[in-house]
Amino acid sequence: MAASSVDEVGNSSSKPLSVVLLSGGMDSCVTLAQAIADGTEPAALHVNYGQRTQDRELRAFNEICDHYRIERRLVVDISHLAQIGGSALTDTTISVPQADPQADPQAIDHTATKPPSTVPVTYVPFRNANILAIATSWAEVLHAESVYIGAVEEDSSGYPDCRDAFFRAFQQVIETGTDTGKHIQIRTPVITLSKKEIVELGSQLEAPLHLTWSCYQAQDLACGVCDSCTLRLRGFAAARMVDPIAYAQ
Amino acid sequence: MAASSVDEVGNSSSKPLSVVLLSGGMDSCVTLAQAIADGTEPAALHVNYGQRTQDRELRAFNEICDHYRIERRLVVDISHLAQIGGSALTDTTISVPQADPQADPQAIDHTATKPPSTVPVTYVPFRNANILAIATSWAEVLHAESVYIGAVEEDSSGYPDCRDAFFRAFQQVIETGTDTGKHIQIRTPVITLSKKEIVELGSQLEAPLHLTWSCYQAQDLACGVCDSCTLRLRGFAAARMVDPIAYAQ
Repeated sequence: MAASSVDEVGNSSSKPLSVVLLSGGMDSCVTLAQAIADGTEPAALHVNYGQRTQDRELRAFNEICDHYRIERRLVVDISHLAQIGGSALTDTTISVPQADPQADPQAIDHTATKPPSTVPVTYVPFRNANILAIATSWAEVLHAESVYIGAVEEDSSGYPDCRDAFFRAFQQVIETGTDTGKHIQIRTPVITLSKKEIVELGSQLEAPLHLTWSCYQAQDLACGVCDSCTLRLRGFAAARMVDPIAYAQ
Repeated sequence: MAASSVDEVGNSSSKPLSVVLLSGGMDSCVTLAQAIADGTEPAALHVNYGQRTQDRELRAFNEICDHYRIERRLVVDISHLAQIGGSALTDTTISVPQADPQADPQAIDHTATKPPSTVPVTYVPFRNANILAIATSWAEVLHAESVYIGAVEEDSSGYPDCRDAFFRAFQQVIETGTDTGKHIQIRTPVITLSKKEIVELGSQLEAPLHLTWSCYQAQDLACGVCDSCTLRLRGFAAARMVDPIAYAQ
């Protein structure tokens, strides 16, 4: 990390600020733990896009922020944009409707171990570019020195905007598109890790994995059988650890 | 232009699709005219960010689209994001409020010939990256081959995300972050032009400049004295042409 900075909102800490994308899931929680371990003072950014478990993920975001006593929090809703990839695809009227939070975000295949190949209604093409642009805007205002994102290449099913090459290209956009002298670095600490390694890193960093939420379909007790729960449970099993959250089955 | 494409919303035209950022101002209108002159079938994207003249600009957007019989229109509101650069800068509460559409977007200096140096409440750092990310998401869904943006280096007061280097870097992000085989090119046809040259190009392309809106502060009759009106009127004067819109003074 570079020298510390004083931002316009009164960062009296001697630590440089970071903006951390925090969905409330395990990958982003471990990424946040890494940002803190790297010596930064995190500002947490959460992006909603009308997903079914939006409220539960927001609760996880807040509980993780509370755990680390993070004061700078920002929640941005891009559900209007998510609709581009769904119903708005065939809608040529002027306005894009708000996403229906009750809509089933995707067809869940309970036996699958990989993300579904069908495109969910809330899929946003080029999503990470949109999210990184928002994060960079905030980082520029805060004079933060880094943007942390918990992208994982292995989980991404080949989504092009989850690959390391994409983040390196975005780094160039930041360097050409922000004020001279503001050097904001994109950090992807878990991008090459397996779910097992993410669990291990989280444990080592004492990340509050008990506060995270991964389930795609439930908001009270994690279902334990959806794609996301399955991947998570396999990660804990491979790391020979017990997942601290409760499951319905 | 490359070979024509057939998109998922039933583009029966033989022309390749483009996504054109259309604010409703003169620069974007001429950019749209150029996209059509380049042989593309445009889809028009308008971005609101809670600016004072938002309704008037949206009307200009729609009237220009009507003029060219553009069916594919998309309006996205990023006023929540614009607040990052304004009051949300000092707000550490969880949610960012909606921008107040009644708020004065900036302190107007009636004698100035350049954009104001004070940061308007609706200024979005890294704005063009956010806008291009939205445009690229839509272009990817539509299978469009290009994204047109009417950025002008001269007018940008050195905003880093208005420079050619920024757009070239963003091109790399598109190439690494979108599906293989979808080659979306960023086009900036007016980036090196002066306001005089933009007026001349618009005239040559028969762009409907009478439908455009540039005024920062009025929504009925253009004031003729704000920064934006002044720059526009000087452009017409330098091109020895008459501005077709009416002015209060």
